[in-house]
Amino acid sequence: MSFSSKVERCELSPVRKFNSYAAEAEANGVKIYHLNIGQPDIETPEAFFHTVRNFDKAVLEYAPSDGLTEYVDAVRDYYGKLDVKLERKDILATSGGGEALEFALACILDDGDELLVPEPFYANYNTFAYMTGGSIRPIPTSPEDGYRYADRSRIEPLINEHTRGIMLTNPGNPTGVILSKEEMRIIADIVKEHDLFLVSDEVYREFVYDNEGMASFVELDDIKDNVIIVDSVSKRFSACGARIGALISRNAEFMAQAMKLCQARLCTATIEQLGAAAMYRQVTPAYFNAVRTEYQKRRDTVVEELTKIPGVKFRCPDGAFYMMITLPVDDTEKLQYFLLQEFNDAGDTVMFAPGCGFYADPSNGRNEIRIAYVNNCDYLRRAIHLLGKGIEAYNNR
Amino acid sequence: MSFSSKVERCELSPVRKFNSYAAEAEANGVKIYHLNIGQPDIETPEAFFHTVRNFDKAVLEYAPSDGLTEYVDAVRDYYGKLDVKLERKDILATSGGGEALEFALACILDDGDELLVPEPFYANYNTFAYMTGGSIRPIPTSPEDGYRYADRSRIEPLINEHTRGIMLTNPGNPTGVILSKEEMRIIADIVKEHDLFLVSDEVYREFVYDNEGMASFVELDDIKDNVIIVDSVSKRFSACGARIGALISRNAEFMAQAMKLCQARLCTATIEQLGAAAMYRQVTPAYFNAVRTEYQKRRDTVVEELTKIPGVKFRCPDGAFYMMITLPVDDTEKLQYFLLQEFNDAGDTVMFAPGCGFYADPSNGRNEIRIAYVNNCDYLRRAIHLLGKGIEAYNNR
Repeated sequence: MSFSSKVERCELSPVRKFNSYAAEAEANGVKIYHLNIGQPDIETPEAFFHTVRNFDKAVLEYAPSDGLTEYVDAVRDYYGKLDVKLERKDILATSGGGEALEFALACILDDGDELLVPEPFYANYNTFAYMTGGSIRPIPTSPEDGYRYADRSRIEPLINEHTRGIMLTNPGNPTGVILSKEEMRIIADIVKEHDLFLVSDEVYREFVYDNEGMASFVELDDIKDNVIIVDSVSKRFSACGARIGALISRNAEFMAQAMKLCQARLCTATIEQLGAAAMYRQVTPAYFNAVRTEYQKRRDTVVEELTKIPGVKFRCPDGAFYMMITLPVDDTEKLQYFLLQEFNDAGDTVMFAPGCGFYADPSNGRNEIRIAYVNNCDYLRRAIHLLGKGIEAYNNR
Repeated sequence: MSFSSKVERCELSPVRKFNSYAAEAEANGVKIYHLNIGQPDIETPEAFFHTVRNFDKAVLEYAPSDGLTEYVDAVRDYYGKLDVKLERKDILATSGGGEALEFALACILDDGDELLVPEPFYANYNTFAYMTGGSIRPIPTSPEDGYRYADRSRIEPLINEHTRGIMLTNPGNPTGVILSKEEMRIIADIVKEHDLFLVSDEVYREFVYDNEGMASFVELDDIKDNVIIVDSVSKRFSACGARIGALISRNAEFMAQAMKLCQARLCTATIEQLGAAAMYRQVTPAYFNAVRTEYQKRRDTVVEELTKIPGVKFRCPDGAFYMMITLPVDDTEKLQYFLLQEFNDAGDTVMFAPGCGFYADPSNGRNEIRIAYVNNCDYLRRAIHLLGKGIEAYNNR
């Protein structure tokens, strides 16, 4: 018995592959500071729990395959406030942003097809691409140029007869880069001229710092048939465990294909959709402002602490709650094993996501890491301090 | 821009494709009796809602990719009571049985691969197979031989170099057929001799009538590396909207592949897993007995009413809550359109799932339908009565 060549190409998540070593370290009494996973400590809005507690049907029935009207309309109204007019048929409820990504790629990629993605990129994109029979062709960027990618001379040479689309995360995971309106226009012109899909993963839309704000690709009417938006309540409302997202497009043919996949898996969780709808309805701009202020403080704390570590390089991220950091070590995977198996400082150690997991060719990014700054400032100070101590111990071992 | 050839091969669900016509009929004031979808009216156990209401964490966090320990251990103990010893690593939490099916097929099927499935079969199997690049090769059965398929002379001639496995629903959807222990042995010997996976969808395990009982393929130690079980709380506890299922196998290599897919989508809903665990822990055998008795009564009611319709043929199902029925009409899809657009009896009409959706070649099953007997006996009597009246009106139109 053999396995699919597609699944054989996939890898375990770089964010989670050290979990068993972490469990061992914890069993040995070591406390781990987590910079590796995007699980915020921000409280989930009470609107969610209130709705869940007050569900009063006696039978927990299937939802419609395309989503409960309560949820779909709540998403529409959220976009309405961003001045984006969507119809119900433009929105499909999904199990988190993950399922939206899966469905998007499954509809547009075939064997041998390619999707251009600015690199470094969210590692799970590889799995979703490989499972279609296609793959990701990276648009290389570098720490030196601030991981920016919206540049014709960088993108157009990579387009060939296999290219079906461009996919990006905006604000960026793992880089924190946000596209300017001018950069968005460049990308929009490229997908229009080359007849490509544009999959825009905008799950971090609320997390834009320094009062910059950002636009969504769904606002651009001239590429409305090209654009597919991946969205989720996970980060927006700190409700990762709800598993409620949305696949959004004004391309009716695309949505008809995606609906086949929605029907095959029947539906997304009923109560969780109602809870998500309540958050969209009841959470105020004040909530988003408070959360944004808190994350900006965390970012600033991390930046301040990182500047104290000799040889560390990074750019200050503009959005999301991730950043890439270049460390003065030979191999950050080896550093992570060392930190979990041989190092502790007063019983504490630290985890990050090694950078190679965010590159198509894992021989790249060997001296980079990605961190998520999703915990409070004291926690982050200690975590970055541990990182500095760990680097020193590793290089002196 | 074009779409994946894989998704282009898929179809909308035959169970849901008449929904827009149904909405139109309802808008015209017609009441529809639903025999088309397996949404039971049985109440979801209070254990689920109690747990959901009492969730008291402030942050709704991700669950582990392989499932919450509370849920995985509850599933283990449920199998323990069936005398099946499973380890935690043999169980992955999934979003309903649908995701378990998706992951199973994605791991074992590649481009051009074939999976043997007794026909008629659950229509969504096609979508899950096509999306891998593989396809389903039907094991034909017929109404005349009671839809039975466990027969070497029927199965072995279909095995070729592309065959990767056999997949079946036991108890059967849409046929209600249950494999005897002797039949299970025949299937087990075939997969062993031909080195095939056996994907056994056992989500209707509790619904076995006439005190017959049934075994699970996971009990057979000599094929433990071949067997993949698809399971779900949807029907077991009438909790379809929870979207909690399980992928179960004692084949460690298979589970390692499936874990890659689990990690890519991060996790299954946290609160719903806790609710599912509570049902496994707290629901008693008396609950299953009562539900089984109720479904058996419904089955008997449907059988009694169907015998009153001239020209209708069927076999009495042994399990699940579905049955295939051969009608005295030329085309049951046309009949369904007629029933929704031109027919009503005192303002009522009826929906079923046309049989062709359950065959690989949709020119088969044109005079068959599948019904789900998931509502109370009065409802079912009226629904079958409407079916009889509708057939008469259709044939006289």
